[in-house]
Amino acid sequence: MITRKRIFKIIEKAENNDIASKIFDISIIILIVLNVFAIILQSFKDIADSYYGLFRFFEIFSVIIFSIEILLRIITCDLKFPEKRWFLSFIKYSFSFMAIIDLLAILPFYLPILIPIDLRFLRVLRLTRILRILKVNRYSKSLDLIGKVLYKKKYELLVTIFITSILLLLASSMMYYLENDAQPDSFPNIIASFWWAIATLTTVGYGDVYPITILGKITSGIIALLGIGLVALPTGIISSGFMEIISEEKEKDNDYKYCPDCGRRLD
Amino acid sequence: MITRKRIFKIIEKAENNDIASKIFDISIIILIVLNVFAIILQSFKDIADSYYGLFRFFEIFSVIIFSIEILLRIITCDLKFPEKRWFLSFIKYSFSFMAIIDLLAILPFYLPILIPIDLRFLRVLRLTRILRILKVNRYSKSLDLIGKVLYKKKYELLVTIFITSILLLLASSMMYYLENDAQPDSFPNIIASFWWAIATLTTVGYGDVYPITILGKITSGIIALLGIGLVALPTGIISSGFMEIISEEKEKDNDYKYCPDCGRRLD
Amino acid sequence: MITRKRIFKIIEKAENNDIASKIFDISIIILIVLNVFAIILQSFKDIADSYYGLFRFFEIFSVIIFSIEILLRIITCDLKFPEKRWFLSFIKYSFSFMAIIDLLAILPFYLPILIPIDLRFLRVLRLTRILRILKVNRYSKSLDLIGKVLYKKKYELLVTIFITSILLLLASSMMYYLENDAQPDSFPNIIASFWWAIATLTTVGYGDVYPITILGKITSGIIALLGIGLVALPTGIISSGFMEIISEEKEKDNDYKYCPDCGRRLD
Amino acid sequence: MITRKRIFKIIEKAENNDIASKIFDISIIILIVLNVFAIILQSFKDIADSYYGLFRFFEIFSVIIFSIEILLRIITCDLKFPEKRWFLSFIKYSFSFMAIIDLLAILPFYLPILIPIDLRFLRVLRLTRILRILKVNRYSKSLDLIGKVLYKKKYELLVTIFITSILLLLASSMMYYLENDAQPDSFPNIIASFWWAIATLTTVGYGDVYPITILGKITSGIIALLGIGLVALPTGIISSGFMEIISEEKEKDNDYKYCPDCGRRLD
Repeated sequence: MITRKRIFKIIEKAENNDIASKIFDISIIILIVLNVFAIILQSFKDIADSYYGLFRFFEIFSVIIFSIEILLRIITCDLKFPEKRWFLSFIKYSFSFMAIIDLLAILPFYLPILIPIDLRFLRVLRLTRILRILKVNRYSKSLDLIGKVLYKKKYELLVTIFITSILLLLASSMMYYLENDAQPDSFPNIIASFWWAIATLTTVGYGDVYPITILGKITSGIIALLGIGLVALPTGIISSGFMEIISEEKEKDNDYKYCPDCGRRLD
Repeated sequence: MITRKRIFKIIEKAENNDIASKIFDISIIILIVLNVFAIILQSFKDIADSYYGLFRFFEIFSVIIFSIEILLRIITCDLKFPEKRWFLSFIKYSFSFMAIIDLLAILPFYLPILIPIDLRFLRVLRLTRILRILKVNRYSKSLDLIGKVLYKKKYELLVTIFITSILLLLASSMMYYLENDAQPDSFPNIIASFWWAIATLTTVGYGDVYPITILGKITSGIIALLGIGLVALPTGIISSGFMEIISEEKEKDNDYKYCPDCGRRLD
Repeated sequence: MITRKRIFKIIEKAENNDIASKIFDISIIILIVLNVFAIILQSFKDIADSYYGLFRFFEIFSVIIFSIEILLRIITCDLKFPEKRWFLSFIKYSFSFMAIIDLLAILPFYLPILIPIDLRFLRVLRLTRILRILKVNRYSKSLDLIGKVLYKKKYELLVTIFITSILLLLASSMMYYLENDAQPDSFPNIIASFWWAIATLTTVGYGDVYPITILGKITSGIIALLGIGLVALPTGIISSGFMEIISEEKEKDNDYKYCPDCGRRLD
Repeated sequence: MITRKRIFKIIEKAENNDIASKIFDISIIILIVLNVFAIILQSFKDIADSYYGLFRFFEIFSVIIFSIEILLRIITCDLKFPEKRWFLSFIKYSFSFMAIIDLLAILPFYLPILIPIDLRFLRVLRLTRILRILKVNRYSKSLDLIGKVLYKKKYELLVTIFITSILLLLASSMMYYLENDAQPDSFPNIIASFWWAIATLTTVGYGDVYPITILGKITSGIIALLGIGLVALPTGIISSGFMEIISEEKEKDNDYKYCPDCGRRLD
């Protein structure tokens, strides 16, 4: 089936001298970027009202193109996973990160047809498509490296997130008990003081909520100092992850040393 | 004594196919998580008042379960440290981190019976039990690694904390002398200007207290820039800690190199 | 052509015992530093008005010196790239970083002669010359090292910037939809909420804009926590970059190991 | 001269079983800590007024002790640098970090006798003595390591500080031109907008000064993002510094490898 194979090659990342595929890739990226600008511009009420028709037309046009692209990907998905049958490929494709991204991007258009409520907020989903750009651009090797580091260190990073969550929970509970009487509006309950805890631990410190009691300030100071550790821990983990992967790759290169006399491996 | 051994195995971290032990582990974790939710919900005054009875019942129920668990751990503590006699094991167990956590969690319930004052604040101690989850979950290997790094670098980190403390003290004293005349309310004494010093050095910067005099601003700027170093130092220490431990473990694996000719170790 | 060669040697970084060249280097740096002070002083309206003539004279004097310097560099640029013809050298020189810096520094003086509008803002360009100091000072080896690290890791750092941009875009779009109804003044459109997104992701947190809705606060909290990762990622990349370059340089030194018996290289 | 030698041994860091020297060390540290508390307490006006006599007596007592200590150090300084004559030793001692710290600590007491003006601010200098504690405590090995890392990387760190200074200067100049018209009170001149630049680049963000114009916000956003790099750079430098020193020390231990057969060094 030559045609399907050709379609597959075109919609996949372009090989070096496949001009049709490259044009396809660039067109899709341009369309994604234009969509991003459209969404930004539509957030200006005057512009959105003045050019309502144009934005609506562009949205329908984009969704049609993106829908066709998704259909083509579904039709050719068995070529991506050649060892599998079409149905199994389709299942595998459907749960791939990129397929979900693509679907989420066109969903805000089709949903209102099915459910007649205001889902303006979902429009932000159209932006998810921008993640596609990461795949096509020429920095994908570096992106892979970063991904590999994060993947290799996923347990350490998850533990860090877990410790952070517990810390946030303990801090916001303590702060609730300490500050609730003095500032019932700023710390009405533990969920509300969670907002303070995040702003403090991440050192954002908007300044809309802060302790005023002595004990509250002491607790807050300790949390802020622990926030430094919160930065230090993932940074150390990620640093060592980069170092490990780089040294692993170097080892692959000059791994084997041979004795010059007998030719046996020294390592 | 088979029964005590069985109890010990059940309350300890479950082995792979010990279903009773696994059910026990999961039940305790569910109870801990429910306690967390109960404490959060109780911080909403309406909910706390409406369901006072339910929360009280759940608290009593939890404390009974947790108390029984602690009793079982005390009874079987000599099985944890087999080389020791029961009394020595008990002493050792009593001062272990987890035993203290467990005791702290039930303390806020028993204390008011002994001391008839309002200790509502102590309720936050019930949350400490959440630290138990760290032990049981499947990320304990990564947690151990993080713990090992922090332990290995404990002196460097303590020195960093010590330097930070001195810096905070010097900064807040200077700021008191510089800003007290201009802002007697924000910098009434050195302890109060400590609050500013922490907010600045950790780069939280709530914005409730900041210098307004020229010299105060210069000092504050220098402190803020040193705050960058305060992040850089522990991060560098922790990074190198991770690298060291990882390279140590790798060395253990491929430590010995043998001469291909005579078979003797080269290292 | 001895004279041109001599001029070239003088305007280039001084060799150890070339006194004329050293005097030239130091004079230029002093002139740059004086220009910096002049610009700072001119920002005080009283001083700018009182000493208008002096500042104007100093500006004209500086621009003349800097213009002569640029002319000399253009005349001798073929000595910098000896393998090239003068015109090609000129092209290459014109697009060098330092040439652009130098031109930008005198541009704010010449532009108003051509275009008769207020370009007071461009005066800041005169400050760009300060970057020249980086070249001449004795820390240029360390600067080179830092530059090498950033250059080696440019793709990873660019990917980080790209991921950050997408994150900022998604965050500000979401925030616009979540907070626009509650705070139409703080989040009037996506571009405006971009300002919030940067302040949050970089953990600056001025506190002029912050979410007040529940969903907005949750989103903001997640963004702030991701901000920690935003610090961790480039730090890890740069750390590993330093380590790599240092270990590469060490390898160059003790790269070759010889067998003590036969004298052949073991590596 | 046994007595001077004995005095020298007592005032120097105690050896393991020199009880007199240990008592001296601990007494001095207790006196330093008490001085810190006295200064903190004196910042509370009520306490300072109520116990004026006590604080005055304690200050005189401390200064006498510290002065005697300094005298003893001066008398015995030739024992610290045995290869030198007394006068040269005295010069060398006078310019040592610890001698300056010690002098600064007693200066605020003697100065008002010479110059009859209010130098209350100088009282903060008494706190500098606290740095002595760093020398005596048992973490001095870790402190040495941190010091060694910072010393080894001093040029890189200085270049970072230099780049930061240039960045701060360019940012505050640009901000002055961009925001001066819109906010003449917040950005009256370049020195004042330097305050904003530091708060932004270090991500403190008090929120007392922030841009309101579009161009100002864009500039501020870029500065804040560069602030991330400002953290990443020294962190990476310090990380690699720790790694280098640790690996150097490890190399010293297992540097030499010998061939088991001929006994010649393999490296």
